[in-house]
Amino acid sequence: MPGNSFGNIFKITTWGESHGKALGVIVDGCPAGLKISEKDIQLELDRRRPGQSKYTTQRKEADKVEILSGIFNGTTTGTPISMLIPNADAISKSYENFKDIYRPGHADLSYDEKYGIRDHRGGGRSSNRETVGRVAAGAIAKKILKTMKIKTFGFVSQIGNLKCEKIDANYIEKNPLRIPDKSKLKEMGDLIDSVRKQGDSIGGIIEVRSVGVPAGLGSPVFEKFDARLASAIMGIGGVRGFEIGLGFSVASMKGSQVNDIMVGKSKGKVKFDTNNAGGILGGITNGNDIILRFALKPTSSISQIQKSINSKGKVKNLQVKGRHDPCLCPRAVPIAEAMVNLVLLDCILENKLSTLKKIV
Amino acid sequence: MPGNSFGNIFKITTWGESHGKALGVIVDGCPAGLKISEKDIQLELDRRRPGQSKYTTQRKEADKVEILSGIFNGTTTGTPISMLIPNADAISKSYENFKDIYRPGHADLSYDEKYGIRDHRGGGRSSNRETVGRVAAGAIAKKILKTMKIKTFGFVSQIGNLKCEKIDANYIEKNPLRIPDKSKLKEMGDLIDSVRKQGDSIGGIIEVRSVGVPAGLGSPVFEKFDARLASAIMGIGGVRGFEIGLGFSVASMKGSQVNDIMVGKSKGKVKFDTNNAGGILGGITNGNDIILRFALKPTSSISQIQKSINSKGKVKNLQVKGRHDPCLCPRAVPIAEAMVNLVLLDCILENKLSTLKKIV
Amino acid sequence: MPGNSFGNIFKITTWGESHGKALGVIVDGCPAGLKISEKDIQLELDRRRPGQSKYTTQRKEADKVEILSGIFNGTTTGTPISMLIPNADAISKSYENFKDIYRPGHADLSYDEKYGIRDHRGGGRSSNRETVGRVAAGAIAKKILKTMKIKTFGFVSQIGNLKCEKIDANYIEKNPLRIPDKSKLKEMGDLIDSVRKQGDSIGGIIEVRSVGVPAGLGSPVFEKFDARLASAIMGIGGVRGFEIGLGFSVASMKGSQVNDIMVGKSKGKVKFDTNNAGGILGGITNGNDIILRFALKPTSSISQIQKSINSKGKVKNLQVKGRHDPCLCPRAVPIAEAMVNLVLLDCILENKLSTLKKIV
Amino acid sequence: MPGNSFGNIFKITTWGESHGKALGVIVDGCPAGLKISEKDIQLELDRRRPGQSKYTTQRKEADKVEILSGIFNGTTTGTPISMLIPNADAISKSYENFKDIYRPGHADLSYDEKYGIRDHRGGGRSSNRETVGRVAAGAIAKKILKTMKIKTFGFVSQIGNLKCEKIDANYIEKNPLRIPDKSKLKEMGDLIDSVRKQGDSIGGIIEVRSVGVPAGLGSPVFEKFDARLASAIMGIGGVRGFEIGLGFSVASMKGSQVNDIMVGKSKGKVKFDTNNAGGILGGITNGNDIILRFALKPTSSISQIQKSINSKGKVKNLQVKGRHDPCLCPRAVPIAEAMVNLVLLDCILENKLSTLKKIV
Repeated sequence: MPGNSFGNIFKITTWGESHGKALGVIVDGCPAGLKISEKDIQLELDRRRPGQSKYTTQRKEADKVEILSGIFNGTTTGTPISMLIPNADAISKSYENFKDIYRPGHADLSYDEKYGIRDHRGGGRSSNRETVGRVAAGAIAKKILKTMKIKTFGFVSQIGNLKCEKIDANYIEKNPLRIPDKSKLKEMGDLIDSVRKQGDSIGGIIEVRSVGVPAGLGSPVFEKFDARLASAIMGIGGVRGFEIGLGFSVASMKGSQVNDIMVGKSKGKVKFDTNNAGGILGGITNGNDIILRFALKPTSSISQIQKSINSKGKVKNLQVKGRHDPCLCPRAVPIAEAMVNLVLLDCILENKLSTLKKIV
Repeated sequence: MPGNSFGNIFKITTWGESHGKALGVIVDGCPAGLKISEKDIQLELDRRRPGQSKYTTQRKEADKVEILSGIFNGTTTGTPISMLIPNADAISKSYENFKDIYRPGHADLSYDEKYGIRDHRGGGRSSNRETVGRVAAGAIAKKILKTMKIKTFGFVSQIGNLKCEKIDANYIEKNPLRIPDKSKLKEMGDLIDSVRKQGDSIGGIIEVRSVGVPAGLGSPVFEKFDARLASAIMGIGGVRGFEIGLGFSVASMKGSQVNDIMVGKSKGKVKFDTNNAGGILGGITNGNDIILRFALKPTSSISQIQKSINSKGKVKNLQVKGRHDPCLCPRAVPIAEAMVNLVLLDCILENKLSTLKKIV
Repeated sequence: MPGNSFGNIFKITTWGESHGKALGVIVDGCPAGLKISEKDIQLELDRRRPGQSKYTTQRKEADKVEILSGIFNGTTTGTPISMLIPNADAISKSYENFKDIYRPGHADLSYDEKYGIRDHRGGGRSSNRETVGRVAAGAIAKKILKTMKIKTFGFVSQIGNLKCEKIDANYIEKNPLRIPDKSKLKEMGDLIDSVRKQGDSIGGIIEVRSVGVPAGLGSPVFEKFDARLASAIMGIGGVRGFEIGLGFSVASMKGSQVNDIMVGKSKGKVKFDTNNAGGILGGITNGNDIILRFALKPTSSISQIQKSINSKGKVKNLQVKGRHDPCLCPRAVPIAEAMVNLVLLDCILENKLSTLKKIV
Repeated sequence: MPGNSFGNIFKITTWGESHGKALGVIVDGCPAGLKISEKDIQLELDRRRPGQSKYTTQRKEADKVEILSGIFNGTTTGTPISMLIPNADAISKSYENFKDIYRPGHADLSYDEKYGIRDHRGGGRSSNRETVGRVAAGAIAKKILKTMKIKTFGFVSQIGNLKCEKIDANYIEKNPLRIPDKSKLKEMGDLIDSVRKQGDSIGGIIEVRSVGVPAGLGSPVFEKFDARLASAIMGIGGVRGFEIGLGFSVASMKGSQVNDIMVGKSKGKVKFDTNNAGGILGGITNGNDIILRFALKPTSSISQIQKSINSKGKVKNLQVKGRHDPCLCPRAVPIAEAMVNLVLLDCILENKLSTLKKIV
């Protein structure tokens, strides 16, 4: 309820602030018997790390993970896995000038209203740096899902007004924008360059897909699979919209166009002629791929001078210097994948208990 | 975790199937001392009730609520409030013909995959009828929020391709479509009539706003106010997309366009020049109105003949007779309001514990 | 958190007051596929029912259970099971005379302090009648556990200073005191008769055992199997002490006397030479029988005149008439069994997720 | 549910193994605005630390706490507080000889049965060392409770057959056994010396009291104040029994002897002539002092040669060398106090939400 935990069975709790000593995560509920090493975790953290290209913040963080508990002889023991990532390159003085000014688009005001105090350095707890813990935990979930042949991958499908037109899954991790359409790389890169030079930023859309997902995941009513995905994704900083399958376009369609028709069964798995529902029926997976999209707002920290107020309500001019991503999208991909994997694993674990046949 | 509960402090659990004996809800965690009666609850249930107009299902249900516990001398006592709504007009035989055929767009297949058994009558637990419990619980939340001068209202902003162009809050409850723009009533009504005559259905978009919301609600990281709203709304049957504030349109915008600028403080409340964020910064309310929208798919039950399969995978022709709403939107408005009110109240209660100053 | 729910996976929520319209329980998380009927539930409710003998309250309640949801064609569907038990023989006027006087030993004062209002009739929510919901839910757990060959039984081992000396499990349900030692029946019955004639009441001790319990149940640290049992048992009205295995007698013993020595393994099950630990090591079951005991205080409602105060603090004479058990023990047996079965089932379900081997 | 978290609002999660790199705790839900430093935490850790006297294990651990997050300028910010305590003096090779032998009285077997793997070094997660995290978290709760003038203190009331006869609260922290009766120190010390020389260990009883506790804490039915205390205390390693107020002695008493009579009201607080209930009525505090006791078994690790089996079931001789407390009681006092304080604070926070009057 204090909001720093996620998951019912494979439960994670993240902690830490942008400019504190360290950040970390506890994974409680990881089944015993999984071979996992710091290297497995590091691989995913490196995908999220700042400073990967000119399109991301220049803050230099090794984001070197240390596992402190829960693993014995390279294997999980069923006890809590504590992972710690030290902060190295925090330049808190960049934030001194506006420590009492509310940065537009940031949580400065709302944290002050809630708690009456906040760690202003680098955005404190509301910083994107908090997501290192999620990605570290997601790396464990990913490894378990791999044993079940379930794979999640995300990509940037739109930046500003520019949209990708084809999906080459192999290209995604080979370009710094994590787009799946090579033909758009130059144009999109130029757009980001241009807004950065203007001291501005730009929004975008990310799509995430999971393949190999079994039918039957999710629970009726309030813990629908899509409701859990929505909560997981909207919990990422800067997300303003979430959709599944056809998403918002269903608004202008007819039932006869939207319903996915089942055409047969093969090896116990139902076949559909379409996947308009994004793999979910009545909140429970139907065996189709999961397809979701979300919209990320342009980075709130821009170097243009903006007006704002201080905590007393006095109007001030503000220039947010620091080091910021001109577009949040590329680095949000591994974060979103981690969240989707955490939901998937949790629902798979829950599903083991859904019928007497599986239990007795 | 089994998915039938919602809320952390003001916690509700719904139960019941479409054609079972009754449906109901337990509200656990309602503070003592609230004056409330069955009449307060009935008012909201009547707004959700089927058979209100020719645009909704013709199933006749009085949806008469009975309070069984938790209220003494017209006042809540702090103990669980149990509310029961009997089922009256269930015509189960409409469902006999296709009890073993998976209706396209419905949860029949996915429930079977999860549980190996399902109550096929009227969709069982996955029926929209389950939401009577949510609306009954939401009515209590609404009454508490009213004492705090917080008000939530929703309306249908789009049906098919037709969009409302102005918002007259007073008009919403005066028309059967719950649209806020009188000039669109005929056109939208005609559209629904026309799809119904085709044995088809149509999607739409609903907007919900909350006014008078204090700053500071919601929690960092995983229980962000918008993440909780997203989960609440995506948990309503047929929702395919959710957005907050500017929503998906942020994807093509710049930071300098999206950031809401704070321009001063008046009576302890910060003033903004815009509300692009929909009242939420970093997952915590900023004192602006909450504005959200969601897309509803066209009703899956259509009377056109569709192809599908039975549980053995054999292809079958299917005609879903029953009685169904040609457009889910009008009746979804009170359901969505109920869910938003439940989130609001829960976050307000949590917020009472956020600082030592409020506690000691 | 509002306190009316129990269990993590097989989760129950009880509701209702002693003199309200009805009482009930929601079981959320029951696996699909269990054959169960109202008759199975009624059997256990009848064991708890008032008016069974001269040793219990003379209130006449049929305690007739009605299942309202979650069962289809006699089989659980995985959706919430709602059960309702109407109140019939509530004589609220017995309580009118002292509705503003705090009955000694009862929750009248403490509820008033917490909630500022209470349903004084028959003790309202704090009445022992609330436990019908627990017993109804426990009956479902019992039926599932039976398929796993796990059996729980309880008995009264002490009333006042009188202690049973032998355990004849077959005798327990054949006598109204639920004692396992026929030779003590007359003496114990006479004791209860005698205190009742004095307008007084008497305490006692109950022992509960579970046989066929697999090793590995319970979780480290805070959800130890014994911690969960303790919480379950201390949650029964009037319990003042709980112990497991040797219990309090370990205080005066040495390690060499208390340690249970493992002497071999047979059919995958470890054999011990003793069971001093009551079947639990480090909070996790070891395969031995579970053995616990708890102390019940003498019924607080006695017909002797007692002094007390009203809500304003004024001293008053009070005679609690109503109809009360002179000894709480016999009827507490099925309640305690229900709670133990609920803990057992929940831990068994959790255990299915403890290792990767069981999951993949 | 994985068992490493405690509390609903002021929620803690501990992690770490006896011979791992470190141990720690996350406190999530601590209200913002509390002045707290590592020194406040260290004070309590030092009370629990090994090597304090000849009566405790000779393992040397500084148990030096480091706060990694959640505190800014010496004040809590409402975000998770992460605390880390490094392991220094772990001598894992003492455990090599019996890494595959199940130590009697320990969790070796039961962890193996549950997880199929365990960190055998120093008992891994089941070690008493895990409680450093609880004590660190409890120190924060203690500081908040102090602002409300609530104080909890514990003491050893019995070791073996020797019982304290008077309670001098000032003496408790001045003697290594944490007994409140100076006249018993020599005798009890001699007893511990004698069992240690025999390579054996001895049990005992601890009493904990809380003074200044407001009425109204705890929740009906399943989260009764005493049920939560029982769970908290039974979660401490080696506890075999728990009682409140008169405890097990109520079994042989009459209602007229046990009921605490209310005799008046002064400054809004009800006065009782006795405190047989230990401060709790119907699971909710009544304003009296909380009084509880629990029985600790003799330390399972004894240096006498014991028989046991290995994981294959083969009988082996075992001599547990390591360094162990001959009596667990003195060091259990601060652990129990921490747990009681965590329950108290959580219930106080919950209580802020119990009536509309406190909320609106």
